[in-house]
Amino acid sequence: MKKRSVKLVIVGSLALDSVETPFERKKDQLGGSVSYACAAASFFARTGMVAVAGQDFPSAYTDLYKRFGIDMTGLTLVKGRTFRWSGVYEANMIDRRTLSTELNVFASFSPELPDSYRGASFVLLGNIAPALQLHVLEQVKKPKFVVADTMDLWINTAKKSLMEVITKVNMLMLNDSEIRLLTGEYNLRRCAARILDWGPEYVVVKKGEHGALLFSKKGVFIVPAYPVDEVCDPTGAGDSFAGGFMGALAGSSRISENTVRESLLRGSVVASFTVEDFSLKSLAKVSRSDIKKRIAELKKMTSTA
Amino acid sequence: MKKRSVKLVIVGSLALDSVETPFERKKDQLGGSVSYACAAASFFARTGMVAVAGQDFPSAYTDLYKRFGIDMTGLTLVKGRTFRWSGVYEANMIDRRTLSTELNVFASFSPELPDSYRGASFVLLGNIAPALQLHVLEQVKKPKFVVADTMDLWINTAKKSLMEVITKVNMLMLNDSEIRLLTGEYNLRRCAARILDWGPEYVVVKKGEHGALLFSKKGVFIVPAYPVDEVCDPTGAGDSFAGGFMGALAGSSRISENTVRESLLRGSVVASFTVEDFSLKSLAKVSRSDIKKRIAELKKMTSTA
Repeated sequence: MKKRSVKLVIVGSLALDSVETPFERKKDQLGGSVSYACAAASFFARTGMVAVAGQDFPSAYTDLYKRFGIDMTGLTLVKGRTFRWSGVYEANMIDRRTLSTELNVFASFSPELPDSYRGASFVLLGNIAPALQLHVLEQVKKPKFVVADTMDLWINTAKKSLMEVITKVNMLMLNDSEIRLLTGEYNLRRCAARILDWGPEYVVVKKGEHGALLFSKKGVFIVPAYPVDEVCDPTGAGDSFAGGFMGALAGSSRISENTVRESLLRGSVVASFTVEDFSLKSLAKVSRSDIKKRIAELKKMTSTA
Repeated sequence: MKKRSVKLVIVGSLALDSVETPFERKKDQLGGSVSYACAAASFFARTGMVAVAGQDFPSAYTDLYKRFGIDMTGLTLVKGRTFRWSGVYEANMIDRRTLSTELNVFASFSPELPDSYRGASFVLLGNIAPALQLHVLEQVKKPKFVVADTMDLWINTAKKSLMEVITKVNMLMLNDSEIRLLTGEYNLRRCAARILDWGPEYVVVKKGEHGALLFSKKGVFIVPAYPVDEVCDPTGAGDSFAGGFMGALAGSSRISENTVRESLLRGSVVASFTVEDFSLKSLAKVSRSDIKKRIAELKKMTSTA
C-alpha cells in the first residue's frame, strides 16, 4: 500500500531516558530529540520520523507516537537494545549532569528515508552526527526549508562535516554556549552575524527559560518563553521548540519572516507544555486549542497595549 | 531662592568605581546606583538626587550631573572620602567579583530631603538600607508611585525593615536570585505571587541580559532586553533600567498597566546604552531621539508582524 506522503521529515535520536529531578526519579521514559520534535510538530503538520530503536522498545511508545499522528514508516526496529540516556537535574532545574549514555543500536544508525518521505518540503535535522544529517538531506528531492540542530560534541569532533551541513540549511538552531563555541565570538549578535555569512538565512539561538533569539538579514526577533508555574522536567524543551516551530512553518501557507516568527512562538508554547511533565506526558494531553490559548497569552505578555 | 520642584526623587548610593573588565581597567569612575538612575531618569522627567559625597568628589562629576539636568539640591557634600567600590568582571561580562568596598561618608548617610523634593509624586528608593528607604519615604508628602530596589545584603541582615518597605511601595524591583532568596520559592511566577500578596501592585524581576519580567494582578509582561553589539561595562545596567523606568512613568500622563509597560521598555533601552561604555559616558552622548529610535526597534523585535 502506498503511504500518504509527509510534509515534514524529522531525524534525530530516539532514547529511553532515566531522569532524576530534585523531586522525582523516572526510569526508561520515552525520550530522544526525535520523539519530542515529532510530537511537537504533529500538532501542525503531517510529520514523518526517521529513527532507530531496539527490540526492547515498548509497544506502548509506538502506540503513543500513533496517537500523535506521527508517520512511523521511517522508524526502524533492529536487533539490540534501544539508546539509553540517564541524567540528573540540579535544584535550579536547568543545569544537568549526564550519568550514563549507552548508544546501543543508535551507534550504527544509518538513516534511510522511505519513498513517502523523499518528497517532503520541510526537513528538521535533529542533533545527530553531521555526516548522518548530510546523508538524510541527500535523500530529500526538493527541500524548501531545512533546519539543523547540533551540539558541542560535533563542534569539537566533526567540525568539517558540520560546516558542510551549515552551508546547506536555511536555518541553524543551537544554544548560546554552542554558538559561542562554534564561532569563537561571545556577543550573540556577532555570533549570529558570523553564521549568516556562512550561508543560512536564519540563525536561532536558544536560551532555555529565557526564550530564544532569531537573527536574519531582516534583523532580530526576540522569541519569548512562556513563563510556566512549575517546571517538572526540562528534558526535550529545545527539541519541542524546534519541532513545534518546523511543524507550524510546514503548516503555514508560505515562508516569510512573518511566518517564521509566528512559527517560533508556536514552538515556544509547545516547549512550555513539554516541561510541565516528564517525557511526552504533558504534550499527550494538550489540544490545539490549549496551544492557541497560550499563544494569545504570550502575545499579550509581549505587548504594551 | 526657591528651587523648582522635582517630579521624581531618587535616593541611592553615590560611588567612585574602579572597574576591571577583560579588556580595560578604569579608576574612580562616577558610579553608584543614584548616578545611573538619575541620569537615566533625566531623559524623561525633572529628577532630584538624594545622596552623599565626600570632599574629594570631583567637580567634573557634579558638572556632568548638571549637564543631565539633574537637580542636586539633595546632594550633600560632607567631610571625608566618597564611597568607593572596586570590582572585576569575568570574560562573560556578567559575573563579577567585588575587590573592595570602602563605605567612607556613605557609612553615616542619613538622607534628608530638601523642601523642593517633598512634593514629588514619584519616588525611587534605590538599593540602600531599608531603614533609610523608610526615612526617605516618610519625608515625601503624597507619593503617587514608589519603587524600591534591594539586594541580598538587606534580605539577609535587615529583613524586618525590608518587609516594612515592601508593604509601603507600589512596586518592588529586584533580580532573580534576590527574589528567590527573599521568598524561598524558585519559580519566578510563584516568587512574584508571594510578593504581590504582601502589598505591592507590581513586581519586576530583573534578569540582566535576558531582560525582565513584570508581574501584576493583570498578568505578566515580558520586558525584552535590547541586544547590543558590544557590552563594554555592565555596571549600572539595573539602576539605569530602574531610573529610566521611573523617569518615563513620571513623564507619562497617567499611571496604568499600559504606561507601566511602556515605561519599562524605556528603562530597558536606556540600560542598553549604559552598558556600551564605562560609567555614564554612553548616556552622556545619547539624545532623546536615539532612545526613541531604539524603542521603535525593540518593538519591532518583539512583534511577529
